Amino acid sequence: MRSSNSLDQLIEALRCLPGVGPKSAQRMAFHLLQHDRRGAGRLAQGLDAALQRLRHCTRCNSFTEAEICERCLSARRDPALLCIVEMPVDLNSMEQTQAYNGLYYVLMGRLSPLDGVGPKELAFERLLARASDGVVREVILATNFTNEGEATAHYLSELLHARGLKVSRIARGLPVGGELEFCDAATVAQALRERRDFS
Amino acid sequence: MRSSNSLDQLIEALRCLPGVGPKSAQRMAFHLLQHDRRGAGRLAQGLDAALQRLRHCTRCNSFTEAEICERCLSARRDPALLCIVEMPVDLNSMEQTQAYNGLYYVLMGRLSPLDGVGPKELAFERLLARASDGVVREVILATNFTNEGEATAHYLSELLHARGLKVSRIARGLPVGGELEFCDAATVAQALRERRDFS
Repeated sequence: MRSSNSLDQLIEALRCLPGVGPKSAQRMAFHLLQHDRRGAGRLAQGLDAALQRLRHCTRCNSFTEAEICERCLSARRDPALLCIVEMPVDLNSMEQTQAYNGLYYVLMGRLSPLDGVGPKELAFERLLARASDGVVREVILATNFTNEGEATAHYLSELLHARGLKVSRIARGLPVGGELEFCDAATVAQALRERRDFS
Repeated sequence: MRSSNSLDQLIEALRCLPGVGPKSAQRMAFHLLQHDRRGAGRLAQGLDAALQRLRHCTRCNSFTEAEICERCLSARRDPALLCIVEMPVDLNSMEQTQAYNGLYYVLMGRLSPLDGVGPKELAFERLLARASDGVVREVILATNFTNEGEATAHYLSELLHARGLKVSRIARGLPVGGELEFCDAATVAQALRERRDFS
């Protein structure tokens, strides 16, 4: 049901943005038209340019304009470490720590059978080929600690172990500055189970 | 500081949307690129079309593709009633009541001296010319009951009274289904002050 009016069409088009319902879309459209026509023009151009230019890096599967992204080509990174994350935002979180200098593979999702997302949809074959390049020594699973992220990590660890790769998982525990009193019991229990030698 | 990368540029461009910060912009960009490229294309087109085609109706100041919008041209509306609202969303709220069949004037804002929005910025001259067309008998002020909306209503009522027009203000009071117990004291006080004969 497309409207013939360009205002209604814009409002409808804005709803493709995640978390934007009819009311927000309306507010956004009026804001752009009344107060930020330049911004709206830039957004239209930005969308066009991104759709035309961006594709998936053939090595890490993240978005890039080249065939292989700068990060994957960097000589300053350790190619023996491969960190698997669900989405580009997760990769950014890892990078912000400045505590990791290996390479990445972005799944662009997580196993979610109820949504019809299985190993095929996530192209696990490509990931396995990437991890089996003979250079990678350790695969670090950094999927989220949600049910789906955990399931994805378990599934992947079996496939990767079968190929003789060392597989690790980022740690769970209390957050930095965290207090036992205000932490949920499951996290405290996990922190206890995964306690480390302390010297 | 414009980035040369089309992904960063898209993320930056998305921030022109009201209420969208850096994190949401990132999430939106990744969502569009990964899951809704068609939607992104439609959005780019929608923005372009809206920017090119939409302008302000010369009568009601709302957005339209024609010189005068359909609503202002409608023969089924009472041209003697002119309702003044702040924004197009407010006009939609009025229309949804199906209780008003007069015409509108959209201020596209409210008086807000701290933000540099005065009578000149809102083009009150145009509104006064519109209200003084000889056909309008009553002007209904339907600006919001915020401090700024109230100030705008008071300011306009003086200008409109000076031109010999009948000016009214939509009522304040308890909402339909409202209970005194759960209503703020100012609203209850207002409902008491503005009580009506009941038969």
